Amino acid sequence: MNLDDIQTPALVLDLGVLRRNLKLMTDALARHPGVVLRPHMKTSKSAEVAKLAAPDFGPITVSTLAEAEYFAKAGWIDQIYAVGITPQKLERVAALNAAGARIKIITDDVEMAGKIAEHPGLLAALVEVDSGEHRGGIVPESAMEVAKALGGKMLGTFTHGGHSYAGRSQAEMEEVAEAERKAVADTAQAMRGAGLKVKIVSMGSSPTALYAKSLEGVTEVRAGVYMFGDLFQGQIGTHPLRDIAVTVLASVIGKRPDRGTVLLDAGAMAMSKDRSTEAAPKDYGFGLMLDIDGQPTFGDAIMRRAYQEHGEVLVPGGKTFRIGDKVRVAPNHTCMTVAAHTQYHVVDGGRKVIGVWDRVNHW
Amino acid sequence: MNLDDIQTPALVLDLGVLRRNLKLMTDALARHPGVVLRPHMKTSKSAEVAKLAAPDFGPITVSTLAEAEYFAKAGWIDQIYAVGITPQKLERVAALNAAGARIKIITDDVEMAGKIAEHPGLLAALVEVDSGEHRGGIVPESAMEVAKALGGKMLGTFTHGGHSYAGRSQAEMEEVAEAERKAVADTAQAMRGAGLKVKIVSMGSSPTALYAKSLEGVTEVRAGVYMFGDLFQGQIGTHPLRDIAVTVLASVIGKRPDRGTVLLDAGAMAMSKDRSTEAAPKDYGFGLMLDIDGQPTFGDAIMRRAYQEHGEVLVPGGKTFRIGDKVRVAPNHTCMTVAAHTQYHVVDGGRKVIGVWDRVNHW
Repeated sequence: MNLDDIQTPALVLDLGVLRRNLKLMTDALARHPGVVLRPHMKTSKSAEVAKLAAPDFGPITVSTLAEAEYFAKAGWIDQIYAVGITPQKLERVAALNAAGARIKIITDDVEMAGKIAEHPGLLAALVEVDSGEHRGGIVPESAMEVAKALGGKMLGTFTHGGHSYAGRSQAEMEEVAEAERKAVADTAQAMRGAGLKVKIVSMGSSPTALYAKSLEGVTEVRAGVYMFGDLFQGQIGTHPLRDIAVTVLASVIGKRPDRGTVLLDAGAMAMSKDRSTEAAPKDYGFGLMLDIDGQPTFGDAIMRRAYQEHGEVLVPGGKTFRIGDKVRVAPNHTCMTVAAHTQYHVVDGGRKVIGVWDRVNHW
Repeated sequence: MNLDDIQTPALVLDLGVLRRNLKLMTDALARHPGVVLRPHMKTSKSAEVAKLAAPDFGPITVSTLAEAEYFAKAGWIDQIYAVGITPQKLERVAALNAAGARIKIITDDVEMAGKIAEHPGLLAALVEVDSGEHRGGIVPESAMEVAKALGGKMLGTFTHGGHSYAGRSQAEMEEVAEAERKAVADTAQAMRGAGLKVKIVSMGSSPTALYAKSLEGVTEVRAGVYMFGDLFQGQIGTHPLRDIAVTVLASVIGKRPDRGTVLLDAGAMAMSKDRSTEAAPKDYGFGLMLDIDGQPTFGDAIMRRAYQEHGEVLVPGGKTFRIGDKVRVAPNHTCMTVAAHTQYHVVDGGRKVIGVWDRVNHW
């Protein structure tokens, strides 16, 4: 099978680029001996990707319980479910752990911590602290109360500096990384000072994992989107365009030479409506159109409108297309784009499809 | 089963509201005797919804070939696949038609029309004309060339006035509806004048279907999003908020009383990143949070940030929540939100789940 034969739209994953991206992260983490990389599978949601990103069933991070179940079944038992838990979801986690998994959960709420402590199942939790993103997490000064409410199920502390994505320079990302480190390291120290046993001190986002100067007091780092990259990360300087591992294969379904546009059969459903490059130096609309080999042959061919199944691309220079011509579109935000698909068509630099990898969507 | 028991996030469809929305459209079309309603299943993608929207296996519109296959198998053989066809997709349509379906395709390209004409399979096509949206479709003056290239497989003409969604008044939508009508009616007349047989003259979008003053010369009208409605349509005045039929059931996973926010387990993956109300009089962010009964108990509780699995809602008035509390979120753009889910939990005004309906995603 070859990319020319595939029905469109479809997801293409370049194995060579993926391997390069994985190496970049393991090299970055190697600067911090003893700190474990716990890759976040929220982006790829694929066991085949996990084989490369978390070899030998290494520790992983997941974003849904469907992922937790999928990866546990595939052999990755050491997981953190990195979204605040609710009482109703405890049973699903406990069932996985009863079957041999070791899914760690997170909470930032005293009442919830009490429910975890009281639950009869095999559960262990990290206290989520807010290191400046102001999304989830309690202020570090109040973390002790949550930690104590967890009783014997307290395992450590956790933060996510998602505001690193607002950074535009290495210095800004280093700063967020240090805020993450300090929040969890100080919290862990305070917990230990109060006689609690702290096994995991977890921080991370792709930019902070790459750029952290010190990881003192941290036991592990989480990151996910680095595996694939996207146009937004190109704009914040963490991931050059040539290292975007996933693209959407699409066909030309219309052409308007008078308007300088082509219509693709990859629209909002195939690309998502993520507009994260909107405020970046370069606005890529809903994606950047490349040729079928993934090369930027068409220059700044930006998908400026995305209807449900139609993507309108403005092509500079009046290139001529025929209906049915195949192209590839690089995503604005890879997590959102890949979530629109059920499988990856894997290539290794060429058009030959060397594998079809599944992924787990939904909850 | 009850909404209180469901794992979140999950899609909820209110049957009573759906029925009311369907009646509004059939009543609107009843003003135009002889004009057929060909509901667009691109929004609901559900056979159970089709039973109500296109009863007795009435004609439907679809937006993907996966939908065409799903609905054909379920008994709806009279379909228009309303996205420009490519050579590679002809075989898939022909196979369905060979098995008893009557899937009509559309094209706006002379070369493509020639390929349809030459294809050995059972195919029939409509010529897509541009009535002002400037997305797909050829200018009406050039439609004849495409029509002739289709040879005996020419079935009629087709347009979509998607720019009706840019309208903010009934008068503007009436104007787009008239542009649609005139484009296809004039094209059909010219075709007939040239001795071609024109069976289908098809136009439509939800706003123009509702507000068209005249449908003279038109044989059928397509519309889809009217079934469910959304916050955007509330803003353009075609669909009041109380008539939004689908919402996303979510749980509170975090609360920040200091910031006046709650975090839900419905984020960008469950709601989509559609921001169509951004330029509307009222910007609903990524959705409006209602109570578990679908009532606007929390006032203007707008989801202002949507991370992958976290939705941050700004709640006016400092309402208190507990972790695990269930709420519902009305979507900004229903087509994008429902596409993030695989099934509907159907209620009829209460919390009791009276059915679970599947839907067909992807391509």
